[in-house]
Amino acid sequence: MSAPVSVKDYENSAREKLPKSVWDYYSSGANNEQTLSDNCNAFSRYRLRPHVLNDVSKVNLGSSVLGTPIDFPVCIASTAMNKMAHPTGEIAVVKAAESMKIGYMQSTWATTSVEDITAAAPGAIRWLQLYIYKNREVTKQLVQRAERLGYQGIFLTVDTPILGKRYKDVKNNFSLPSHLSLENFKALDLKELHTVDGENGSGLAQMVAALIDPSLQWSDIAWLKTITSMPIVLKGIITGEMAKRAVKENVAGILVSNHGARQLDGVPATIDALREIVQAVDGKCEVYLDGGVRNGTDVIKAIAFGAKAVFIGRPVLWGLAHNGQEGVRHVLKMLREEFKTALQLMGCTSIEEL
Amino acid sequence: MSAPVSVKDYENSAREKLPKSVWDYYSSGANNEQTLSDNCNAFSRYRLRPHVLNDVSKVNLGSSVLGTPIDFPVCIASTAMNKMAHPTGEIAVVKAAESMKIGYMQSTWATTSVEDITAAAPGAIRWLQLYIYKNREVTKQLVQRAERLGYQGIFLTVDTPILGKRYKDVKNNFSLPSHLSLENFKALDLKELHTVDGENGSGLAQMVAALIDPSLQWSDIAWLKTITSMPIVLKGIITGEMAKRAVKENVAGILVSNHGARQLDGVPATIDALREIVQAVDGKCEVYLDGGVRNGTDVIKAIAFGAKAVFIGRPVLWGLAHNGQEGVRHVLKMLREEFKTALQLMGCTSIEEL
Amino acid sequence: MSAPVSVKDYENSAREKLPKSVWDYYSSGANNEQTLSDNCNAFSRYRLRPHVLNDVSKVNLGSSVLGTPIDFPVCIASTAMNKMAHPTGEIAVVKAAESMKIGYMQSTWATTSVEDITAAAPGAIRWLQLYIYKNREVTKQLVQRAERLGYQGIFLTVDTPILGKRYKDVKNNFSLPSHLSLENFKALDLKELHTVDGENGSGLAQMVAALIDPSLQWSDIAWLKTITSMPIVLKGIITGEMAKRAVKENVAGILVSNHGARQLDGVPATIDALREIVQAVDGKCEVYLDGGVRNGTDVIKAIAFGAKAVFIGRPVLWGLAHNGQEGVRHVLKMLREEFKTALQLMGCTSIEEL
Amino acid sequence: MSAPVSVKDYENSAREKLPKSVWDYYSSGANNEQTLSDNCNAFSRYRLRPHVLNDVSKVNLGSSVLGTPIDFPVCIASTAMNKMAHPTGEIAVVKAAESMKIGYMQSTWATTSVEDITAAAPGAIRWLQLYIYKNREVTKQLVQRAERLGYQGIFLTVDTPILGKRYKDVKNNFSLPSHLSLENFKALDLKELHTVDGENGSGLAQMVAALIDPSLQWSDIAWLKTITSMPIVLKGIITGEMAKRAVKENVAGILVSNHGARQLDGVPATIDALREIVQAVDGKCEVYLDGGVRNGTDVIKAIAFGAKAVFIGRPVLWGLAHNGQEGVRHVLKMLREEFKTALQLMGCTSIEEL
Ligand SMILES: Cc1cc2nc3c(=O)[nH]c(=O)nc-3n(C[C@H](O)[C@H](O)[C@H](O)COP(=O)(O)O)c2cc1C
Ligand SMILES: Cc1cc2nc3c(=O)[nH]c(=O)nc-3n(C[C@H](O)[C@H](O)[C@H](O)COP(=O)(O)O)c2cc1C
Ligand SMILES: Cc1cc2nc3c(=O)[nH]c(=O)nc-3n(C[C@H](O)[C@H](O)[C@H](O)COP(=O)(O)O)c2cc1C
Ligand SMILES: Cc1cc2nc3c(=O)[nH]c(=O)nc-3n(C[C@H](O)[C@H](O)[C@H](O)COP(=O)(O)O)c2cc1C
Repeated sequence: MSAPVSVKDYENSAREKLPKSVWDYYSSGANNEQTLSDNCNAFSRYRLRPHVLNDVSKVNLGSSVLGTPIDFPVCIASTAMNKMAHPTGEIAVVKAAESMKIGYMQSTWATTSVEDITAAAPGAIRWLQLYIYKNREVTKQLVQRAERLGYQGIFLTVDTPILGKRYKDVKNNFSLPSHLSLENFKALDLKELHTVDGENGSGLAQMVAALIDPSLQWSDIAWLKTITSMPIVLKGIITGEMAKRAVKENVAGILVSNHGARQLDGVPATIDALREIVQAVDGKCEVYLDGGVRNGTDVIKAIAFGAKAVFIGRPVLWGLAHNGQEGVRHVLKMLREEFKTALQLMGCTSIEEL
Repeated sequence: MSAPVSVKDYENSAREKLPKSVWDYYSSGANNEQTLSDNCNAFSRYRLRPHVLNDVSKVNLGSSVLGTPIDFPVCIASTAMNKMAHPTGEIAVVKAAESMKIGYMQSTWATTSVEDITAAAPGAIRWLQLYIYKNREVTKQLVQRAERLGYQGIFLTVDTPILGKRYKDVKNNFSLPSHLSLENFKALDLKELHTVDGENGSGLAQMVAALIDPSLQWSDIAWLKTITSMPIVLKGIITGEMAKRAVKENVAGILVSNHGARQLDGVPATIDALREIVQAVDGKCEVYLDGGVRNGTDVIKAIAFGAKAVFIGRPVLWGLAHNGQEGVRHVLKMLREEFKTALQLMGCTSIEEL
Repeated sequence: MSAPVSVKDYENSAREKLPKSVWDYYSSGANNEQTLSDNCNAFSRYRLRPHVLNDVSKVNLGSSVLGTPIDFPVCIASTAMNKMAHPTGEIAVVKAAESMKIGYMQSTWATTSVEDITAAAPGAIRWLQLYIYKNREVTKQLVQRAERLGYQGIFLTVDTPILGKRYKDVKNNFSLPSHLSLENFKALDLKELHTVDGENGSGLAQMVAALIDPSLQWSDIAWLKTITSMPIVLKGIITGEMAKRAVKENVAGILVSNHGARQLDGVPATIDALREIVQAVDGKCEVYLDGGVRNGTDVIKAIAFGAKAVFIGRPVLWGLAHNGQEGVRHVLKMLREEFKTALQLMGCTSIEEL
Repeated sequence: MSAPVSVKDYENSAREKLPKSVWDYYSSGANNEQTLSDNCNAFSRYRLRPHVLNDVSKVNLGSSVLGTPIDFPVCIASTAMNKMAHPTGEIAVVKAAESMKIGYMQSTWATTSVEDITAAAPGAIRWLQLYIYKNREVTKQLVQRAERLGYQGIFLTVDTPILGKRYKDVKNNFSLPSHLSLENFKALDLKELHTVDGENGSGLAQMVAALIDPSLQWSDIAWLKTITSMPIVLKGIITGEMAKRAVKENVAGILVSNHGARQLDGVPATIDALREIVQAVDGKCEVYLDGGVRNGTDVIKAIAFGAKAVFIGRPVLWGLAHNGQEGVRHVLKMLREEFKTALQLMGCTSIEEL
């Protein structure tokens, strides 16, 4: 294969390099994968209307998330268990993020601990994606460790009271390979984990059922605020109603997301939902988007509809699978360059002009 | 083939296991099969709008049909001649239904008699799908036998004055294999049957033409009420006008159905028709849906649009063909689990909240 | 191949049996063939809304064209040069039409003369499709011969001042095989024909350019009325504006047609155009449709939108290619049966109830 | 391969004949090539509504561009580096244009100089497509050379402050083969060119970045007018807003274009944009279209929506690749003939009647 020049190329490379069950876990979506393809295809329903004959010799690609400046408006979404893609796992990803001066959202289920992440890339903008556990003490410890390590925000995932139905994981009896572990919990005693057999259907779904709190509700945001002073972003809002509800809780931001179409198949594509959410929020908190972002014009569309930044999940995994940190970095560089090109061709010199 | 984990997997298994003419009979639809694919595809035209951060730790999946509680809102639609799929035929199906605590609608053209069904699964919720015969005496006997055996309702099929044009059956000269028989009529002398040669085109279409009364009309519902006190559901309503007309006859329910797209090609997909029918009925009787239901989110959509339950036809046949009662039971279990997952991900704890 | 049970089967058979250049000529459309596929696909944009529980034990399929009763509302559209499909050519077709009691529209460019047609099927309902020649004397003779032979109407083709661009015919240097001739003109001296070399591009297009009058205009209808008292139908109207204009000329009927998508690619599908035309005509003349009719539900849709009858072109050629008169007859019988089935399933006992 | 009879045939021939990297450069579009396919497909969203029974025996295909009559409304769009398609390159193209009496727009990046073009086809209608260089002196010299040679207009490309992202060129490290050169600049000393290495990604993109002025703005049109008295057309307008803005600068014309979908993927198809632009311009300058024109009915649609002429890019390259001048000429002849046919079948005798 020749050197990859697009996210698509990295995806093709990853498909070849990864063991089937890992590829399936990373690439698949819930049920019929209707929303999975829609997340990508929906971008093509919108048309760009460029301005011509503007001086675009100097452009500023910067944006900010939760008050922290980023070099261009593409950050890294939390994806679980990165060491399955490449032995360097999350370390490679966070270092790539650090070098590109964009933000890194670490998964609760990383195969690297918050401590090791921080040690590897102390200058990186780090946020913690959070699943709230039945065991609130475990949750609290994790959040507070992150805060002490300089994490700058919590992305609370709200679309996962239980795991979505992913046929391929069920078929593969998918669970984390035995030589890896969810490092954030290594020190903790999670007795619920012992109920997971991992031999019958999706081990991951069983783990979620055993550990994650399906009774999570709006009032828990207040509780979360009692244990941390980091700003809270809700990850997984996909309608205007829910966005309005979130604003009432004084959250710092909303990440318009359907979890990469891995939870409830049939929900709207994120770019389709974005506008109603931006309207509903009416400037009362920041809005971001993830899901299906694959090139620079996708970024343009999300920003033009009111997102402050977009997050990418799978493209990072494809870069990582291809050749570790270098691959992730190249994916980010390509997106940066494509975004810059598209911005200039739109006749804009900064994201405010979009 | 690995163990099936979705209805689609069962369909693929059945395609391999069944003799071609049986597969064709079970799977095909009328004419160009436009409505056949539309029945399934139409579900993807609707988007789910989940509520997040609701406590979904405890959910109640139950619904009811004609006043009888069911464990979750998926019941079994009448399909003719199940012994072609598996030697255990209808017995396997009704037992699966019994064990899952959902309703079983037996076809007039079952290859097992109402008596044998009842003996095998006395605790099952049983309804009789009815074709009204030219020979009204035959009709009356069948209905009254069912009522005596504890059947709890009649699903009167209204979309089949004659059989739809199914090219594959014509090509295969399809008729019931000679070692099987329509057990409900074994004792009765149906002289019309002798006019069927079964060598020229669809033997089934000829049987329908010989036996079924094409002069059936609205006034016959009154007649039906004179011979049974079971509640009557009209099966095969696909427009709001007809639903309004049905309400005038004081029927107990309407099953929005296009007979699995096997009668008149070009009619609406059932999920497309459901809303106008629910509106037309305006709560005056129960409304159900069948046609194209293949996973948990399909069920969610139908229930959200006002159906009390959905019925499945082919998925049951695929499970039966794969491995008898166990297959049917697994199909039902999968749909139960998928429905539960989808309900929770919608942020709902019961079907009333949809 | 097993015995054909649908028009599609006949099409597949014809594709195999016919020489490539003949298949290409018969099957192809103009330019990109956008309208060709649209003619068929457009039918699936409309949904049937059946009435149930009507007595459909007795149905009357009959309609009429120009006052002449036909047994069911499907007639035969003019297609040129039928002997390329089968040696029996037009004779087989007209005999099939006669036996089915529906109308036969003979092409000006038949490979059988009006005299021979009439001799073979004196009881057939015959109409003459007319191209008006630059040589008006030739035109007049043909019309008057037909009238004397008992032809009952003229279908004046108005969409062919020149021939449409059909790439395949150009590529094949298509022209009539030398052992066949346009029998209606055998006796006449058409000196323009000598300008056609038939070696360079579509010989047919050259013939049209040489013979057909591209200056034909509305006022010529008055001239046509001076030479015949047969009723005149305009074949090739595809917009409401033109239909209104036609009504002003007191034509007896309008055949909504785009010449089987062989003239101007990009015009509307006929079923899409039908409704605006029926509305524009407002009952002032009869309206028919041809183009893309392939099964009984297509007929239902056209009749429901106001056509008195539909005409079929290619399906007749496919039947003819398969096995002559028998094939044509079977195509007609299938369409009759499918139409009957669909009518009954619509809950109607005659075309008036549609 | 048999002799080509359509633009599609020429495209297929070119795909076979050209080296892969040249084919890729000529055929590809930006990013996902969404707009590339849309440019062609969009034409099929519009329906033609022919008039029948008009005398079309005599038709006038002529139009004019910037006051110069053309024989039919199809001209040649600027495409860079034609000698890669065929050794005769631009000379073949301009001679074909001359012989067909339509206009030729020469690319700034031609592999033949304006002098050689003029010498080869002194009778041709010639316009110069202009990229404005950072080095304004170079720009000025080129414009003034063209004007002295009898060029009749400037098509100022406004959609290329930088080059679009074309994955295939990046992958191929595409740049001009070493035996060819951009002849218009041979005499000039373009020191910026030395910064281009052509070994890493798209050499063309690097050349554009080095040479073309990304600070080009509306006020530069005034500057352009100070150095030439040729009329100025803006090439690359795709929205009504920009068209209105252009009118303010008193340009002579607007070429609705998205650069053959090679610059910003996701912009509207040109035929979709045309109408809003014609409306915005409101007759204050001429409007033309390029992008996706592949047959006579495409031309009809653009003219009917208000364009005075259309331009073709790739079809010319396909003809050139097939067999030089003869191929280009045949492509033009086919389009002329197809346009004539379509015009007659529309019932029109000139473009004014469309
Ligand atoms: C393999 C994989 C694992 C993921 N793991 C998590 C996770 O642990 N927590 C979470 O909130 N989201 C998780 N997500 C969702 C991502 O954060 C993000 O919403 C999604 O990937 C964005 O869509 P994209 O992959 O199309 O860019 C995961 C996604 C993937 C593909
Ligand atoms: C093989 C087969 C046989 C059927 N037999 C009957 C029948 O005897 N009576 C009846 O009312 N409906 C019959 N139906 C229709 C079903 O009751 C039901 O409406 C339909 O199968 C639902 O669509 P689905 O198969 O997409 O779930 C049959 C359907 C199939 C597929
Ligand atoms: C092979 C062929 C030849 C035709 N020849 C004529 C003809 O000579 N005169 C005419 O008016 N229409 C002619 N037509 C058009 C038909 O009369 C009719 O409009 C068309 O075939 C209907 O569409 P269908 O083929 O989809 O049924 C021809 C069509 C075909 C396919
Ligand atoms: C290979 C190629 C080279 C081109 N080079 C130029 C160029 O040098 N300058 C320019 O303004 N447009 C250029 N264009 C754009 C064309 O002028 C024109 O806008 C486009 O090709 C029209 O679309 P079409 O190819 O679908 O007909 C180029 C297009 C192609 C395909």
